[in-house]
Amino acid sequence: MNDNLEFAVNLAREAGEIMKENFSLGMKKEWKEDNTPLTITDTKVNALVLNAVQNTYPAHSFLGEEGSRLVNSEYVWVCDPVDGTVPFSHGWPTFVFSLALTKNGESMLGVIYDPVSDRLLHAEKGTGAFLNGQKISVSKDSNFSKMSLVEVAGEYRLPSIREKLTAEGCYLPAFYSCVYAGMLVATGEFAANIYEYDKPWDGAAVKIIVEEAGGKVTDLKGEEQRYDKEINGFIASNGLIHQKLVDVIRPLLK
Amino acid sequence: MNDNLEFAVNLAREAGEIMKENFSLGMKKEWKEDNTPLTITDTKVNALVLNAVQNTYPAHSFLGEEGSRLVNSEYVWVCDPVDGTVPFSHGWPTFVFSLALTKNGESMLGVIYDPVSDRLLHAEKGTGAFLNGQKISVSKDSNFSKMSLVEVAGEYRLPSIREKLTAEGCYLPAFYSCVYAGMLVATGEFAANIYEYDKPWDGAAVKIIVEEAGGKVTDLKGEEQRYDKEINGFIASNGLIHQKLVDVIRPLLK
Repeated sequence: MNDNLEFAVNLAREAGEIMKENFSLGMKKEWKEDNTPLTITDTKVNALVLNAVQNTYPAHSFLGEEGSRLVNSEYVWVCDPVDGTVPFSHGWPTFVFSLALTKNGESMLGVIYDPVSDRLLHAEKGTGAFLNGQKISVSKDSNFSKMSLVEVAGEYRLPSIREKLTAEGCYLPAFYSCVYAGMLVATGEFAANIYEYDKPWDGAAVKIIVEEAGGKVTDLKGEEQRYDKEINGFIASNGLIHQKLVDVIRPLLK
Repeated sequence: MNDNLEFAVNLAREAGEIMKENFSLGMKKEWKEDNTPLTITDTKVNALVLNAVQNTYPAHSFLGEEGSRLVNSEYVWVCDPVDGTVPFSHGWPTFVFSLALTKNGESMLGVIYDPVSDRLLHAEKGTGAFLNGQKISVSKDSNFSKMSLVEVAGEYRLPSIREKLTAEGCYLPAFYSCVYAGMLVATGEFAANIYEYDKPWDGAAVKIIVEEAGGKVTDLKGEEQRYDKEINGFIASNGLIHQKLVDVIRPLLK
């Protein structure tokens, strides 16, 4: 394990401990301007990672959902301290820690940690994707079928997306954690997930982990994009159904 | 704790152990005629409960999702061995064990167990609802607000339900376990859940646990119903928004 990866994995485990300890029913939360909830755990984990990057990689930038430290660097660590704050703060355990290292906007390394099921995913450019040290790969479905599971986060830019995908035979869970759904794409459980917002920390680690597991991740139009600034949503899929999804999505884009 | 309750709680914990041990990625599953998945865990837990009822209460009926033993009795134990087989078999941990005792179709006692988060809910007629021994109560929201969480299972009889509820400002998670969502109604995290199918084991324990927690559970038209035979869906809510939900749902019913 190289130093960057070891750094990211150690942070993921430390963050996971904090998340697991603080997961409870009846959790206190505040509301952010974008009308999503914020808990003390989001803030605490964000600070943990921001400080660690500042201390270990002072020349790198840090871009976090709950606060950033931007310097002039081609390297940016991109972090969602708790992806899935809605489930985390409302009692169902589909939330993860997500951290990626980007170089000139390209995801070079990614770590996702699900502390409830103790699943640590990691990937580095060109070396495959792993779950708790075991190589993983995406599903082999080349068609939408009854049980192609596709998670959709959004629906504001694609208001008829659920209808279209249901007609194609997809199951459409929605548990409000797009990185968790990305983890399930990388491990072969979900055929895809579709994300309509612009937050890079929701896509940076998914991008490299899903692709190193054999899948494909593009923006909503099917094009490549940077993950160190606002993104144009993303489609993360097993690769085999990617073009089919792009063909469904492009005409719906507002 | 009376004998019936002790019996149900012991079975719930035993079932939960089996579920927890067998929860994994890449799980083997078969497909039932109604196009829902079936795992060996569903079958094993169903048999466990069927045998226990037969041995302890030979004069009572047992109605289970994966097999029943019906005798001529006013008492029916109604069980969903694994509610949420889709999540259970696709890698996300929102699944529960559910068991109720009905007398002449009325839920008298209910137990729900979430083995991942170790949450045991129970209720008996007239004595309140409890989570791991602590009294619980539903939420106090009397209006739909941005973060009224409502889970919808179905959409085939209410094809425009998501659109209507989104317009009302609700969040609509869908994690394919209506009893799990019922647990979150009873504990005050969700405002409601709406269920369109006819399976009594999806509603029998939710009915008494949500109502003993201060909420309300009716069929889709807002009426009372039996839970020892096919049901007309259900709406489980915090009570305060129940009529409002009925008013949204009734005109949509096909």
